[in-house]
Amino acid sequence: MIVSYDGTDFCGWQRQREKRTVQEEIEKVLEQMLGKTIRITASGRTDSGVHAAGQVCHFDADTSIPAEKFAPCLNALLPPDVKILSSRRVSDGFDCNRHAKRKTYCYQLYLSDKTNPLKERYSVKCPFYLDVEKMRSAAELLVGEHDFKAFCASGSSVKTTIRTIYALQIEEGESFGSKDLKIYVTGNGFLYNMVRGVAGELVDIGNGRFGEERLKEALYKGDRSLLGRTMPAKGLILMGVEYGDP
Amino acid sequence: MIVSYDGTDFCGWQRQREKRTVQEEIEKVLEQMLGKTIRITASGRTDSGVHAAGQVCHFDADTSIPAEKFAPCLNALLPPDVKILSSRRVSDGFDCNRHAKRKTYCYQLYLSDKTNPLKERYSVKCPFYLDVEKMRSAAELLVGEHDFKAFCASGSSVKTTIRTIYALQIEEGESFGSKDLKIYVTGNGFLYNMVRGVAGELVDIGNGRFGEERLKEALYKGDRSLLGRTMPAKGLILMGVEYGDP
Repeated sequence: MIVSYDGTDFCGWQRQREKRTVQEEIEKVLEQMLGKTIRITASGRTDSGVHAAGQVCHFDADTSIPAEKFAPCLNALLPPDVKILSSRRVSDGFDCNRHAKRKTYCYQLYLSDKTNPLKERYSVKCPFYLDVEKMRSAAELLVGEHDFKAFCASGSSVKTTIRTIYALQIEEGESFGSKDLKIYVTGNGFLYNMVRGVAGELVDIGNGRFGEERLKEALYKGDRSLLGRTMPAKGLILMGVEYGDP
Repeated sequence: MIVSYDGTDFCGWQRQREKRTVQEEIEKVLEQMLGKTIRITASGRTDSGVHAAGQVCHFDADTSIPAEKFAPCLNALLPPDVKILSSRRVSDGFDCNRHAKRKTYCYQLYLSDKTNPLKERYSVKCPFYLDVEKMRSAAELLVGEHDFKAFCASGSSVKTTIRTIYALQIEEGESFGSKDLKIYVTGNGFLYNMVRGVAGELVDIGNGRFGEERLKEALYKGDRSLLGRTMPAKGLILMGVEYGDP
């Protein structure tokens, strides 16, 4: 299933005791629909407050309901802030987490010294000047296969911190009287907090706090302390997950 | 003051007993700040659920606080869904309601048969095909000075139903996997529900339910029953108010 949600009022994807999560909302209505407990697996967790335009999840169910009917049926029962965009049958061995080839995230900023109530829900205010060309130049350093240890939040246990970023692009726009920046990043996978760290590093390079040399050193040494800020969750949107060959 | 608000959780601009309104929120913090009751006047009311990127309001106050400091002071006290973008002193006779020369509204639609949680807050889903060229052609009929009686919600008492629309434009875009339409309309003033009626009529012409001849007849006869739907409040945004000569 392809799932879209407004992460504002969710404590992230993953089921947790006594917290409202996306996984739990979907599993709850699946249980209503099928009369039995169903466990769903996502392409990856999203943190508390992170949004999704195209999260992917799968589950096993023994049912006579056609797979494509799950989207409209579940949507009738789901709350307004999470909806299933489509559902289909997949082959028996398919695992939406292990088989994900590429993921794309978008990080949304708006450039203003005034808080804008119409932008605050899905983007983060930058009250200082950003040199977008400097940001684009630094972004180029991150494209390709690298050890992103420096961008890995402490305490996370992963086998390897090597990831490939296929594309990292910054789109400029304008809405409601101020400039918008959208940072799109596509990779074969991301470490915990990596996209928010990348966005924060680009912001700190754009505002002149840090330079490219320091980013190169951070990557080389795997040293988190050389990097810029980690951006807040509300500006981050999981745009989509791809399963074909890259 | 120029004011921006997310109308979702407000029962409109105008103060009402036991309802949360934008006027009341601003007056409440003005009273906290100045220690006395202040009444503010808006360029015009907005309905329950309607948003604003650039509403204008004024008030009289006998204070030594510089006018431009009201924006940051009030913002420190205001809730996240209403913020003052700027504040300044105006001449004694200025009335932001009576002296408004032009107002611009934007009506936001998205074209999809799937509800998208990331678009639902500020736009309205159109689950059918819209012929944008037909909509643009019909929009041309509405530009200029006309008697908009047909677009006037019943029960409203106004001196005249003649208004001038200076511009009515439809912008196409795309976000989160579906097409967006923004209908921008600028006029010297709008009747109650007029913009939502204009948007609804354009939608019903775009989807082929009605044709231009029927719109001409509705305008000529002042007959509401010949027009299309009235669109929901949540897709409507007051973009700005101008005070210079048009």
